[in-house]
Amino acid sequence: MRHRYFRSEPGPQPLRQVVERTVRFEEVDPLGIVWHGRYPSYFEDARLALCNRIGIGYRDCYAAGVATPIKQIHVDYSKPLHFEETFTIEAILHWCDAARINMEYLLRNREGEVTTTGYTVQLLTDPHQQLPLLVVPPFMETFRNRWKTGEIA
Amino acid sequence: MRHRYFRSEPGPQPLRQVVERTVRFEEVDPLGIVWHGRYPSYFEDARLALCNRIGIGYRDCYAAGVATPIKQIHVDYSKPLHFEETFTIEAILHWCDAARINMEYLLRNREGEVTTTGYTVQLLTDPHQQLPLLVVPPFMETFRNRWKTGEIA
Amino acid sequence: MRHRYFRSEPGPQPLRQVVERTVRFEEVDPLGIVWHGRYPSYFEDARLALCNRIGIGYRDCYAAGVATPIKQIHVDYSKPLHFEETFTIEAILHWCDAARINMEYLLRNREGEVTTTGYTVQLLTDPHQQLPLLVVPPFMETFRNRWKTGEIA
Amino acid sequence: MRHRYFRSEPGPQPLRQVVERTVRFEEVDPLGIVWHGRYPSYFEDARLALCNRIGIGYRDCYAAGVATPIKQIHVDYSKPLHFEETFTIEAILHWCDAARINMEYLLRNREGEVTTTGYTVQLLTDPHQQLPLLVVPPFMETFRNRWKTGEIA
Repeated sequence: MRHRYFRSEPGPQPLRQVVERTVRFEEVDPLGIVWHGRYPSYFEDARLALCNRIGIGYRDCYAAGVATPIKQIHVDYSKPLHFEETFTIEAILHWCDAARINMEYLLRNREGEVTTTGYTVQLLTDPHQQLPLLVVPPFMETFRNRWKTGEIA
Repeated sequence: MRHRYFRSEPGPQPLRQVVERTVRFEEVDPLGIVWHGRYPSYFEDARLALCNRIGIGYRDCYAAGVATPIKQIHVDYSKPLHFEETFTIEAILHWCDAARINMEYLLRNREGEVTTTGYTVQLLTDPHQQLPLLVVPPFMETFRNRWKTGEIA
Repeated sequence: MRHRYFRSEPGPQPLRQVVERTVRFEEVDPLGIVWHGRYPSYFEDARLALCNRIGIGYRDCYAAGVATPIKQIHVDYSKPLHFEETFTIEAILHWCDAARINMEYLLRNREGEVTTTGYTVQLLTDPHQQLPLLVVPPFMETFRNRWKTGEIA
Repeated sequence: MRHRYFRSEPGPQPLRQVVERTVRFEEVDPLGIVWHGRYPSYFEDARLALCNRIGIGYRDCYAAGVATPIKQIHVDYSKPLHFEETFTIEAILHWCDAARINMEYLLRNREGEVTTTGYTVQLLTDPHQQLPLLVVPPFMETFRNRWKTGEIA
C-alpha cells in the first residue's frame, strides 16, 4: 500500500468504511476546484460512518463520558476534485494499543484514482477534553476485543 | 523554537506576519470549542496577509500566470479556542530553494499560549494547476532576491 | 397548502424534487441545533437536484451562456434540526412567465413535521451577471414548453 | 430610507452598529463572487457586535436564562462582492414592543454602494428554545428602558 501514515503495531487487520459524496457548489473555489480547507469535512463523513458502525461514535462516547478530540490532522492533495464530481472517502482505522484513535483516509474519484490522502489522531479524554485517559475505557475495551476476535470486521 | 516542521536550509531569516481574529458563533461545535476543520481558514488568513505584503499574493501570482495550490496541510491541536475568544495567527515563511512555498503557523490565545501549530506546502504550477514549475518564475525570483538582500523582512 | 410564498400564476403544476440529508457535526452550533446560516446549503441541494433533472442546472445554463444569480432568499424556522438527524428537503418550482426562477422549499424531519420553509428568487442574466435577460432564452423556453405539455413533471 | 422591512412602531430611534469585513478566498464561488449562502455569517458579525455593545449578547442572554433563536432571515442581493473586497455591514435594531428582536442589515462596498440588504427576526424563549416568552425578561426590559431614555444610542 502506497499510503501509510502509521507505524504498524501487532494486532488485527484495519477496519474500513467507504462513504460517497458529491462536490457541492459552495465547496468549489474561484479556480474551479474544491477549496483545500473542505477536506476535514470529507474525512469526518467517513470517520463518523465508521465509528457509528463499530460502536464508538459520538453518542457512544458521550454515553460513556468520554471525549475524542482531534489532536492532529494531515492532508496530502494529489489531484483536485471539481463541482458535481462524485467521489468516495475511505476511512481506515489502524490498531493501536494506546488510548488514542489513529485513522487514515483515502479519497478516490470516479476513475478510481486516489485524489487525496491523510490521517487524524484522536485522544481519549474526560468529557471536558481536559485530561487524557491513561487507560482505555470499558466501552472502548469491549469494542477492541470484538475487533480482535473478528466479531467486528 | 519548539515547533519546527521544516528542515532548515541555508538562507535568510524567515518572514513573519501576525493577524488577529475572533472566534465566530458558527465556528464553534456542540462541545463549545472551535471545530477542528475551521483551522485551514485561520491559517489562510495569515498566509494571505503575509503573501500580499511581500508581493506573492493571489493577484500577483495570477498576473504572473502562476498558481500555488496547497499540496499538504498539517495541524497540531494543543489547546481549544472558544466562542468570542480573540487569538492571533502567525504565518512564518521559511526559505526554500525549490519552486515551492513552505509555511508554518502558530496560533496564540489572549494569554499568549500556543493553542495550535501547523504547516502548509504549496507548489508553483501553471495557471491550470496541472504542471509543477521546474524553475522559479521571475516575479518569485525577484521577491526572493529582495528577501535575501533584506529589502523585505 | 400552508406555505405559499409566490402569487399563483396561470400555468402547469409546480415541479418538485425531494432530497435527503443528514445533519453533520460541523453544522451544529453550541446550543446543539443546526446553525441558522446552514440552510441556504440545504435549499441548494434540492434546488440543484431539481434543476439538473429538468435540464436547467448550472452546466445547462453555462452552456447556454446564461447565469442565474440568487436575488432573494428567505427562510422561516419552525423547528430545530439536531446532530445526525436525517431530514428531507423538497424544492418546488413555481410557474412564472418572466425571466426568473421562483422556488420554494420545505424541510421535514423523520416524523414528517415541517421544520423549515423558505424560497429563493433567481434572475436570468448574461454570463457575467451584469444584465438581466429581457426575454427567456431558448433552452429555458424549451424546458418551459416541455413543462407545459407535461413531458416534464 | 430606501430599505424598510419592518413596520414602524412608536418608540426611540433605531440602534446601529457598523463592522468591517474582507471577503475571504473560501467565501468566493466558481463565478468569482461571494456565494449567496455566506451572508447570514455577514449579518451575524454586525448583529453580535451590536448586541454585545448594548448588553443583549449571547452571554448576557445565557446569564439571564434566555435564548434568542432566529425565526426568520431574509436577504436581498443587489450587487456582488468579490475576493479581497472590503465592505461594511450595518445592523439596525428597530424598536418593537413584543418579546422579539427585529434587525435590519445593510452591506456597502468601498464605493459606498449598498450591495445587500436583509433582516432577521428573533424570538425570546426559554434556554431550550422550546417556549416563547410571553413577557419581556428583566434584563431586556432594563436594556429597553436605557434605549428609551437615550442612555444607549
